[in-house]
Amino acid sequence: MITVLSGGTGTPKLIRGLRQILRDNEISVIVNTAEDIHISGHYVSPDIDTVTYLFSGYLNTDTWWGVRGDSFETYHAMEKLGYKEILPLGDKDRATNIARTAYLNSGLTLTEATKKITDGYGIFAKILPMSNQGVTTYVVCEDGSLMHYQEYWVGKRGNVPIKGIVRKTSDDSPLTATPEVISAIEESDGVIIGPSNPVTSIGPILECDGVREALKNKFCVAVSPFIGNRPVSGPAAALMKAWGYESTSYGTWQVYKDVVDMFIQDTSDTIEVPKANRLDTMMTNEKKAESLAWDILSFFPR
Amino acid sequence: MITVLSGGTGTPKLIRGLRQILRDNEISVIVNTAEDIHISGHYVSPDIDTVTYLFSGYLNTDTWWGVRGDSFETYHAMEKLGYKEILPLGDKDRATNIARTAYLNSGLTLTEATKKITDGYGIFAKILPMSNQGVTTYVVCEDGSLMHYQEYWVGKRGNVPIKGIVRKTSDDSPLTATPEVISAIEESDGVIIGPSNPVTSIGPILECDGVREALKNKFCVAVSPFIGNRPVSGPAAALMKAWGYESTSYGTWQVYKDVVDMFIQDTSDTIEVPKANRLDTMMTNEKKAESLAWDILSFFPR
Repeated sequence: MITVLSGGTGTPKLIRGLRQILRDNEISVIVNTAEDIHISGHYVSPDIDTVTYLFSGYLNTDTWWGVRGDSFETYHAMEKLGYKEILPLGDKDRATNIARTAYLNSGLTLTEATKKITDGYGIFAKILPMSNQGVTTYVVCEDGSLMHYQEYWVGKRGNVPIKGIVRKTSDDSPLTATPEVISAIEESDGVIIGPSNPVTSIGPILECDGVREALKNKFCVAVSPFIGNRPVSGPAAALMKAWGYESTSYGTWQVYKDVVDMFIQDTSDTIEVPKANRLDTMMTNEKKAESLAWDILSFFPR
Repeated sequence: MITVLSGGTGTPKLIRGLRQILRDNEISVIVNTAEDIHISGHYVSPDIDTVTYLFSGYLNTDTWWGVRGDSFETYHAMEKLGYKEILPLGDKDRATNIARTAYLNSGLTLTEATKKITDGYGIFAKILPMSNQGVTTYVVCEDGSLMHYQEYWVGKRGNVPIKGIVRKTSDDSPLTATPEVISAIEESDGVIIGPSNPVTSIGPILECDGVREALKNKFCVAVSPFIGNRPVSGPAAALMKAWGYESTSYGTWQVYKDVVDMFIQDTSDTIEVPKANRLDTMMTNEKKAESLAWDILSFFPR
């Protein structure tokens, strides 16, 4: 059993490669929920859905979110009516979100609701939200005010100077991993921290009480999301700086170094991370993702 | 200005006829909300939506609910996932319900939310929910227990013996018409009580505090929904009996007689209602609806 810590784009690409080597029931994925957001009364969990659609075979692998070939009838009808959603949800994608919201409203935890959905889609992999708590990432603006990460990234397209990162649970209680997350780490033969944004995707998972402690007892490989000192995609650079780290593989390693046994950076990276392994991490197609997955798994103790 | 009291099927057929004679901005419709229901977190108002889609030109006039040619992508995706909605919502129809729910959650009243939607669809008629309160019709089962009307009619298809009808507001306060409803009646040249179910559609409107009093000062014509002693559609018969009335035009007249100046029953009705006018009320097509509307309007004082 391999456990993967995942955000929404880079790591699912790696998981696609892992699926060519491992059976789905040999894979557990602990998924970031700090980008979860309410849209039109739906509880939307973008990273859980990307991983879910990846395993169900529905994922739109052009955009790495949403359902391939989805229609947008409801979204366009709402636009016509003058009501605009912050993120356009496809009709099939909306179905997942409506069902999840109904399950949560009926009293299920996010972990239970996710299991009902992944069972519904016939998925054999274990897909585990990092926590059952509501948690949100905020950026700290220059004037000290907090801005919801989605507002910063989607609304303002990252064009706002920021000087910090703050994570808040909805009830201000400490962010805690679920028992299922801790068990998944403990029962696995090793853990892969995927090449997702350290600040908004992997950071929140590591911040969940119990996760770092569990990882310290496991063989853990982390893959840097930076290539040639630039993030592959997304707003990682400005966020890393605001978080107090260099926006490079070196900065990423500093965030992870207390829990990782091996750090993997891209062959073209000009920054030197101490004792890092070098691999081609640019997963431009499924074959390259499979190749990277083979190389990573070859490091695992048997 | 003509004001119409409407439910979900028969009366919209008559309104379709009225629209051939009057301009939309000469029509106000006071709509039953006692069949409103929450579906998957959406606030669904079937009668308001039928009237709204009628005026926007979107109405599916085969079924007299929902949007013509609507797709059901979200509904079918939810089915696949194992989550079933009590009523299947089409994708465009869902858009209306999502927008309404968002408006209500932002603090608007149902009247204000309805206005935003009818404005959004470019509708000139005034479409007014009878009340801003949540109100639900229950049937009283033989053992005295209450069953939600939608559960009785949609879930059990009316195949449950019942012995009473109960209306409940969500906060147990008395059911009250909105000021907009009372003004619409007061400012109109006359009122038409359409051929909708007296128990579940027209009854709730008449029960709103203020409506009967306002109607008594207006010329008011009611059209019976019964033809030849049988309801044209829907569960009117069993409901009328449980409500304590004969399930005929005569029973309907008894419910309305304190407020109506003229009662219209079908030419083929075998029951004799005192002083009623006889017209062909079977609106099997738009021309017949227009003809009925002409005849009704001809009774109005000028």
